[in-house]
Amino acid sequence: MPNNPFKMRIGLDVMGGDYAPQETIAGAILAQKELSENDRIVLFGDEVVVAEELRSQGSQPELFDIIHAPDIIGMGEQPTKAFSQKPDSGISLGFKYLKKGEIDSFASAGNTGAMLVGSMYSVHAVPGVIRPATTAIIPKEDGRVGILIDVGTNPDTKPDVLYQFGVIGSIYAQNVFDISNPKVGLLNIGEEEEKGNLLTQSAYRLMKDSPDFNFIGNVESRDLFKDSVDVVVCDGFTGNILLKNMETMYRLIAKRGFANDPFFTRFNYENYGGTPILGINATVLVGHGISNGKAIKNMLLLSKNVHQAGIAEKIRVALEQVISSDNV
Amino acid sequence: MPNNPFKMRIGLDVMGGDYAPQETIAGAILAQKELSENDRIVLFGDEVVVAEELRSQGSQPELFDIIHAPDIIGMGEQPTKAFSQKPDSGISLGFKYLKKGEIDSFASAGNTGAMLVGSMYSVHAVPGVIRPATTAIIPKEDGRVGILIDVGTNPDTKPDVLYQFGVIGSIYAQNVFDISNPKVGLLNIGEEEEKGNLLTQSAYRLMKDSPDFNFIGNVESRDLFKDSVDVVVCDGFTGNILLKNMETMYRLIAKRGFANDPFFTRFNYENYGGTPILGINATVLVGHGISNGKAIKNMLLLSKNVHQAGIAEKIRVALEQVISSDNV
Repeated sequence: MPNNPFKMRIGLDVMGGDYAPQETIAGAILAQKELSENDRIVLFGDEVVVAEELRSQGSQPELFDIIHAPDIIGMGEQPTKAFSQKPDSGISLGFKYLKKGEIDSFASAGNTGAMLVGSMYSVHAVPGVIRPATTAIIPKEDGRVGILIDVGTNPDTKPDVLYQFGVIGSIYAQNVFDISNPKVGLLNIGEEEEKGNLLTQSAYRLMKDSPDFNFIGNVESRDLFKDSVDVVVCDGFTGNILLKNMETMYRLIAKRGFANDPFFTRFNYENYGGTPILGINATVLVGHGISNGKAIKNMLLLSKNVHQAGIAEKIRVALEQVISSDNV
Repeated sequence: MPNNPFKMRIGLDVMGGDYAPQETIAGAILAQKELSENDRIVLFGDEVVVAEELRSQGSQPELFDIIHAPDIIGMGEQPTKAFSQKPDSGISLGFKYLKKGEIDSFASAGNTGAMLVGSMYSVHAVPGVIRPATTAIIPKEDGRVGILIDVGTNPDTKPDVLYQFGVIGSIYAQNVFDISNPKVGLLNIGEEEEKGNLLTQSAYRLMKDSPDFNFIGNVESRDLFKDSVDVVVCDGFTGNILLKNMETMYRLIAKRGFANDPFFTRFNYENYGGTPILGINATVLVGHGISNGKAIKNMLLLSKNVHQAGIAEKIRVALEQVISSDNV
């Protein structure tokens, strides 16, 4: 695709997710209507299936670019093996195009592990980043949102990695959610410096006089929805447990008829669509396996915001400063 | 107190909790009415304050035993220091009476750390127990309850400690909540054996062929409310984060007017009142700092159930079997 006439080319793995390709195509159609004429969605999937699904949902294949990817990486497949052994899958081809610069972002609601492997093997981590991270959006009682980082990418995390999550999370909050000078809290089981496990105690010592982000100290899980903290930093094990519990509480709230409550409705992941993998040299997003059309649409729109904010480059610059200032 | 005429003597730290002594006394009065005539509540606190508060709430000091404890261990005090330097506090005196057998159980909604210190220093851990644990009660969608263990006592936990939590949690679930052959799950971020952090991966290997409890494998935080698991085992850091998040979600649900929902109302900690410190040679319970009268009442009633179930002795016998069978 030389002489790319489009402002942005937004890649999507059509076969990723429990309800693919119906819901991924539905989301692509919705996003296409909301995006600028200069933007172009690039669909990775079996070209016959994709074209048929587009037509059956009342859209036209001509509105999209379709890259033929006949193979599929399943949700349960071992990520590294699948990524290397299935070069014609949507995920593998997506990263190939991303690396060559033929798409500007790539998103999938499929195998998250394969998306991580693709990120690390093809576009690589930003220099200085120890571990990339994923995030969740936390609705605040006052109507704003906050960020939880990490939510599962790093089940075992070291204190310096948590420190970097403070840097990375701040950049994401500031540039994608317009939160100026984000307040960064360390998720812990007490407010005092000496509280917590060995990991959080060490991380606190690294963070407490940080010139690299606005550290406000320890926060507890009961503080998540308050406006006193914008970016909550934790290891990926704890973050994943917390995220899935919130999702489940929301599911139960919805099941019992309270989903239309103006606060609780904001717990619906469909509104946010996914999370970027932060700390890599490209814009890559992963979505919930159960994503429906609305979630896919929002993941594609978020792709654009993350890309335009230049998150990867901002993280690179910020971590260069951290390293040169000897604070970690 | 020789020739104890009472079936059970239930100790309470009157000055423990944010709303002491009004709410602790209110709870004691409520419990006194529900307990058998043979049971006797023993109140540890300033005798003048206790007697006045009992009278002002329409009860009579004669219905209780009052042990004069003029000193108070505050919520923010360093536990070990406070416990040793304030021998006339309710907590210190409570453990003194407990150790001498002059009370059969002791409960406080005050400084949890001081209650742990008192447990370890005065009545000691059950032989074989590596670390005592505390629990939370999880309401199930089907109307039953489950147990989460540990919820904060052990922020850093080793795999063999998690294994013991499986044993201890099963005994508690079976003997206090009448759950026969409790299904024990390891809290993790995926269902497969290889998922999780180093801690849960190792714990899984210890647990998977356990003859000491009914291990059903990994469970995710989204499974907590399902009837497929009765006892969810986790480290105290994760458990505390999870518990406080559920409490906060419940608080928000209540704030938004849905607290009377028959499922969500069961998230109200007041219904359960507290948790025993499991794995020590006595019946000791700790309650929520914000406990009101209802919560204190239920903590006192739970004290009786835990004591009558003979949990400490059952844990001792069970761990002897574990050690002799060389499974850990």
